[in-house]
Amino acid sequence: MADSLDELRDRLRAFAEERDWERFHTPKNLAMALMVEVAEVAEHLQWRTGEESCDLPEPVRAAVAEEIGDCLIYLTRLADRLDLDPVAAAHGKIAVNAAKYPADRVRGSAAKYTEYGRG
Amino acid sequence: MADSLDELRDRLRAFAEERDWERFHTPKNLAMALMVEVAEVAEHLQWRTGEESCDLPEPVRAAVAEEIGDCLIYLTRLADRLDLDPVAAAHGKIAVNAAKYPADRVRGSAAKYTEYGRG
Amino acid sequence: MADSLDELRDRLRAFAEERDWERFHTPKNLAMALMVEVAEVAEHLQWRTGEESCDLPEPVRAAVAEEIGDCLIYLTRLADRLDLDPVAAAHGKIAVNAAKYPADRVRGSAAKYTEYGRG
Amino acid sequence: MADSLDELRDRLRAFAEERDWERFHTPKNLAMALMVEVAEVAEHLQWRTGEESCDLPEPVRAAVAEEIGDCLIYLTRLADRLDLDPVAAAHGKIAVNAAKYPADRVRGSAAKYTEYGRG
Repeated sequence: MADSLDELRDRLRAFAEERDWERFHTPKNLAMALMVEVAEVAEHLQWRTGEESCDLPEPVRAAVAEEIGDCLIYLTRLADRLDLDPVAAAHGKIAVNAAKYPADRVRGSAAKYTEYGRG
Repeated sequence: MADSLDELRDRLRAFAEERDWERFHTPKNLAMALMVEVAEVAEHLQWRTGEESCDLPEPVRAAVAEEIGDCLIYLTRLADRLDLDPVAAAHGKIAVNAAKYPADRVRGSAAKYTEYGRG
Repeated sequence: MADSLDELRDRLRAFAEERDWERFHTPKNLAMALMVEVAEVAEHLQWRTGEESCDLPEPVRAAVAEEIGDCLIYLTRLADRLDLDPVAAAHGKIAVNAAKYPADRVRGSAAKYTEYGRG
Repeated sequence: MADSLDELRDRLRAFAEERDWERFHTPKNLAMALMVEVAEVAEHLQWRTGEESCDLPEPVRAAVAEEIGDCLIYLTRLADRLDLDPVAAAHGKIAVNAAKYPADRVRGSAAKYTEYGRG
């Protein structure tokens, strides 16, 4: 169960209800909070090269882990408040992308990745 | 299994490998891509009030669902590239927050929510 | 001269050169740093209503002022590194928007603002 | 006058008033809109290396110029709605940074740039 998003969603919902925080958790506010948390991840990576970002010093990696936890918290809450299933949405998007970027056509044209769009 | 992030992670990893996209998927680039996707969610909500954002017209809600799918895709990929478990990180953060904002002390002081920080 | 962006640009350029920081100031890194600074503005506003954000407590307003200074710093640097004139770009965009959203047609249809796009 | 932010501010203020858009332009909404525009800049750079981002194909550079214009529009509006002077704030921040990162001490330690923080 450790990787279940439904379980996380339920725990977060109870957490907000117990504190009477539901009223702050509008989709608008949660989207804004999510951006802020993603920016806190980015802050650790902004001056490093892509290569350096693959091999972070351990304290940085631990700090990033915490921010990623916050990102998942707000993303899960946001989806919950909109009554959306984020994992189903992700799988749906992968199916769309698989049709759009067939592996055999894309492989070997990686120089054009930026034009293929977002992988 | 439908809500499993491990399953989603494995599917995304295979997707990138099949297309030789691993080299573009540095943590730095993925963090940037995640910000862009979160902004695409925010774009639908930026001029609506918090209240309006709770009751989106169905086509807008469907568009937001797709963007939330993209957010989860990049967040999962980012965690995978850093060898981090995002669900464990989220649960760890909830434990920290539970100690920081005890329900009985927080409830009823909601006017000070902004000072309590990020719920 | 106090409101001149050219003067600010020159000062920032000298500042980076004196510190041998030009190599970190790629457009990619500067765009990322700009996002981080904008998020620091947003952090002060995320749990407030739109109305509350119009009337910030003075210490919050002062903190936002500092973050806005950082935003302008990175935006100016980013434009400089791409050899772009941000003020000219803004005026060009206003001309486009003026044609797209004629005042007499838009006024009074404010309920549809979100569909008119970004003002 | 072409680089004057005061002039841009006044033009944007008139633009919003003529369209009765002031009510949408709360600091909260403008901060959110600014993040969205910065993300549109980032979208053009996210899969490029830092080096590639210094030498963009001309059509990409032109597209980035338009997004930078939008960023400056929202940043100027945001500062105006909070009755803040963004150029003064930027100069204030440079003074702080000059004391924090003295050129003679920083130069030559560039490997530690990420620890020095945000340049």
